[in-house]
Amino acid sequence: MSNWFLSITYYIKKRLTVKKVLVPLAQGCEELEAVTIIDVLRRADINVVTAGLDDEPIRGSRGVTLIADTNINKIVDDVFDMVVLPGGLPGSTHLGQDSRIISLLKKAEKEGRFIAAICAAPKILANLGLLNNKQATAYPGVLEKSAFSEVQITNQAVVWDGQMITSRGPGTALDFALTLVESLVGKTIRNNVEQGLARTG
Amino acid sequence: MSNWFLSITYYIKKRLTVKKVLVPLAQGCEELEAVTIIDVLRRADINVVTAGLDDEPIRGSRGVTLIADTNINKIVDDVFDMVVLPGGLPGSTHLGQDSRIISLLKKAEKEGRFIAAICAAPKILANLGLLNNKQATAYPGVLEKSAFSEVQITNQAVVWDGQMITSRGPGTALDFALTLVESLVGKTIRNNVEQGLARTG
Repeated sequence: MSNWFLSITYYIKKRLTVKKVLVPLAQGCEELEAVTIIDVLRRADINVVTAGLDDEPIRGSRGVTLIADTNINKIVDDVFDMVVLPGGLPGSTHLGQDSRIISLLKKAEKEGRFIAAICAAPKILANLGLLNNKQATAYPGVLEKSAFSEVQITNQAVVWDGQMITSRGPGTALDFALTLVESLVGKTIRNNVEQGLARTG
Repeated sequence: MSNWFLSITYYIKKRLTVKKVLVPLAQGCEELEAVTIIDVLRRADINVVTAGLDDEPIRGSRGVTLIADTNINKIVDDVFDMVVLPGGLPGSTHLGQDSRIISLLKKAEKEGRFIAAICAAPKILANLGLLNNKQATAYPGVLEKSAFSEVQITNQAVVWDGQMITSRGPGTALDFALTLVESLVGKTIRNNVEQGLARTG
């Protein structure tokens, strides 16, 4: 076969298999968590789309201003392999009160796609019943046993149970992001990305 | 003494003692590193000022767009307790070629203030001779022994030697930021901030 045919086949195959992830960004999101997730997933050549709930620049919970790639209205009907919710307050509250986010999450769950949340955001999933009969973790105190008796609450750094991946907070964001990479594109690429972060000397 | 007098005294004392840190942001900076530094220092109530080298939004090395607090021209004569250089390419190259950054670093060193750099950025300090006779670390391969024979190069995650604090890369950014907190406001506040990050369960 000629080179151009192989190149085009490779290009099309790559386009068709590249994973697509949505990271919604609300005003008051935890920027360290949001940026760690986006950065690490892009290092794995995953197509990360960040979407604001409005058209304004996003002011994070520690005052860092981010500009989202798009507005959530423009991609609400797109198909994503994973939706990742960063934590932070009031960012997480805004996400949980947004009907577009709720409908995206319900659709992703029904279609067997990944849903991930960190810090205060796992509560959004718990409120929707998406963590019922699953192991999950969150920022200490966010998931109370009394309120969510059907969730198997742990205090682990990262929990991957079926479609649902949850994590504790800013201090576990890197391990969370690496687990997301592993769930989407496998352990070899996760290890390559982790090596590139220079965690070990 | 009356309450209002105590309140005003407290306020003035706090304003005078609050630490001020400059984080210059160049086009192509490593956004995970930049945002981790800014976020963690602000959690310690340190006054962090981010300054762009131009007036454009900053596009990080993984495509996250940030808006800096100000332009470096506006704060070039201000006094900072610490200057922190994020890594990333070409961000780090831009910082190292900028005469305003070079003059800020030389002034900080002369005045005994802290200078910190991570990933590719310690090379900027090494090029200026600021790491001579000091221990330092950087992203693997960035500081070659042949080029910088007067620097005591290590492969540690974070190195704090006198005024100079250096670190390896995205995977060590959190430990780096916590060390910056410790150097500026002490171990107790560092420990409090670390606990708030939920690194441990």
